[in-house]
Amino acid sequence: MANLGFIGLGIMGRPQAGHLQAAGNQLYLNTRSKIPQELLDKGGIACRTNKEVAEKSDIVFIMVSDTPDVEQVLFGENGVASGLSKGKIVVDMSTISPITTKEFAKRIEENGGLYLDAPVSGGEVGAKNATLTFMVGGREETFEKVKPYFQLMGKTITLIGGNGDGQTAKAANQIIVALTIEAVGEALLFASKAGADPAKVRQALLGGFAASRILEVHGERMIKRTFAPGFRIALHKKDLNIVLSGARALKVSLPGTALCQELFNANSAMDEDGLDDSAMVKVLERMANHEIRAKD
Amino acid sequence: MANLGFIGLGIMGRPQAGHLQAAGNQLYLNTRSKIPQELLDKGGIACRTNKEVAEKSDIVFIMVSDTPDVEQVLFGENGVASGLSKGKIVVDMSTISPITTKEFAKRIEENGGLYLDAPVSGGEVGAKNATLTFMVGGREETFEKVKPYFQLMGKTITLIGGNGDGQTAKAANQIIVALTIEAVGEALLFASKAGADPAKVRQALLGGFAASRILEVHGERMIKRTFAPGFRIALHKKDLNIVLSGARALKVSLPGTALCQELFNANSAMDEDGLDDSAMVKVLERMANHEIRAKD
Repeated sequence: MANLGFIGLGIMGRPQAGHLQAAGNQLYLNTRSKIPQELLDKGGIACRTNKEVAEKSDIVFIMVSDTPDVEQVLFGENGVASGLSKGKIVVDMSTISPITTKEFAKRIEENGGLYLDAPVSGGEVGAKNATLTFMVGGREETFEKVKPYFQLMGKTITLIGGNGDGQTAKAANQIIVALTIEAVGEALLFASKAGADPAKVRQALLGGFAASRILEVHGERMIKRTFAPGFRIALHKKDLNIVLSGARALKVSLPGTALCQELFNANSAMDEDGLDDSAMVKVLERMANHEIRAKD
Repeated sequence: MANLGFIGLGIMGRPQAGHLQAAGNQLYLNTRSKIPQELLDKGGIACRTNKEVAEKSDIVFIMVSDTPDVEQVLFGENGVASGLSKGKIVVDMSTISPITTKEFAKRIEENGGLYLDAPVSGGEVGAKNATLTFMVGGREETFEKVKPYFQLMGKTITLIGGNGDGQTAKAANQIIVALTIEAVGEALLFASKAGADPAKVRQALLGGFAASRILEVHGERMIKRTFAPGFRIALHKKDLNIVLSGARALKVSLPGTALCQELFNANSAMDEDGLDDSAMVKVLERMANHEIRAKD
């Protein structure tokens, strides 16, 4: 049982912190809005600053939105960095820039702390059911210390490499998911407009090289017109933004990723930011003046 | 045991015809170049024209390259159409235009014949091992008659719908495979240039929503630098050409497919048409001045 800090108690952080607490750990909490009452009722202690969280905890978990938010939490006034002492571990589970992450890790180590980047996939459902996938970057001995806590919140936990490599793996994941959604969208739309039953095409293709989790899950959403998230377009756009600015800095050209970002922009133009990312197909459909539907 | 015609005895057709023959069927053969000796040695009969093949056979299988080749076989001088009589079945296993296929089927039926479009996936290995996937379009009763012969050449055999729908499913397959190769290529390249081990990233991503057969098979080829085909870029380009001209006719915009076609064009510029389609990543690599390699 340990003293754990948790900063960022939103849709993801709240159930994650709950799992850590349920295992008997003492939580020190801070978040931008109100700290969820159930965490306080079960013994969680509210802190006034992120510095205070760091002072009272051995490991500080962070789950916020974007790179500037993590920077503020770590290095803003009364930030985590100012409350660190030797051997304390900072674990950033937000999805942010891999390049900036390397800088953050360096600055935290200069403050005597240790750093893991540990972005997750699996979304709200994974957070609630403790089935998240963790992609981790950092030192192996630090990883081994935190692993038991990752296991309270997730299922597949992989140390990819040094600091930043967890965020890099997450970026790669978001690239593949976006482009595969586009692939499935273009294929089912073509099939449907050519007069075939997209449901039968999807079924036949699942047996061969076109098979993917996206064809299975997102392909079905496109056919059944169920675009409730899942994973919201707003968030996928944010993640592709991280990828594309990283790619610019690294001098890597990602034409397919850029295209998907622009398709998501067209979703935004129709107020579809709150839909599941499989709704990228709605942009393609409007361009084709045709909507995918299974024949029955 | 039936009288079967087989036109087009290339890399794919030759082993396929062999499987039909090995099951005891009498083959009537024609092809543009020389008829393979082993098929003649085992009792196959060489015909001088495609008309003659049609006259002597109950079912005529065709396995040639592209839409104009099928048109020539069917409706050229002394073509299959001129040798048909009521109830004979034409089975086109080539990968060609779904739209033109509907016209071909109509013309064959006007000649008293029946038509199935039955493109395959699985490549040379699938043809040799009789493990091809068949995506079939046509009437159900015709499909049922030919099914036992498909089963001699393949494993997964699906009737998608009416004529053209088999080709449409194949087109959808080729869209997804191309775009997923691009997805995996961009992701592994980004990861590698950001300093992560692409092999570890691939492994971690296979557990989540980014999982696909392409990440598994083609992702590994990109990392291990094994670009021997597999499925050649030249053929995938041909197939995307069919898709994109079909899309133009149907008024469907496929921006991702168009991009992949252009990337394959850049492969051609470097004489890479004979490589496996996973070598699309080499174009992205040249654009990034960086080559994917696993750390060891």
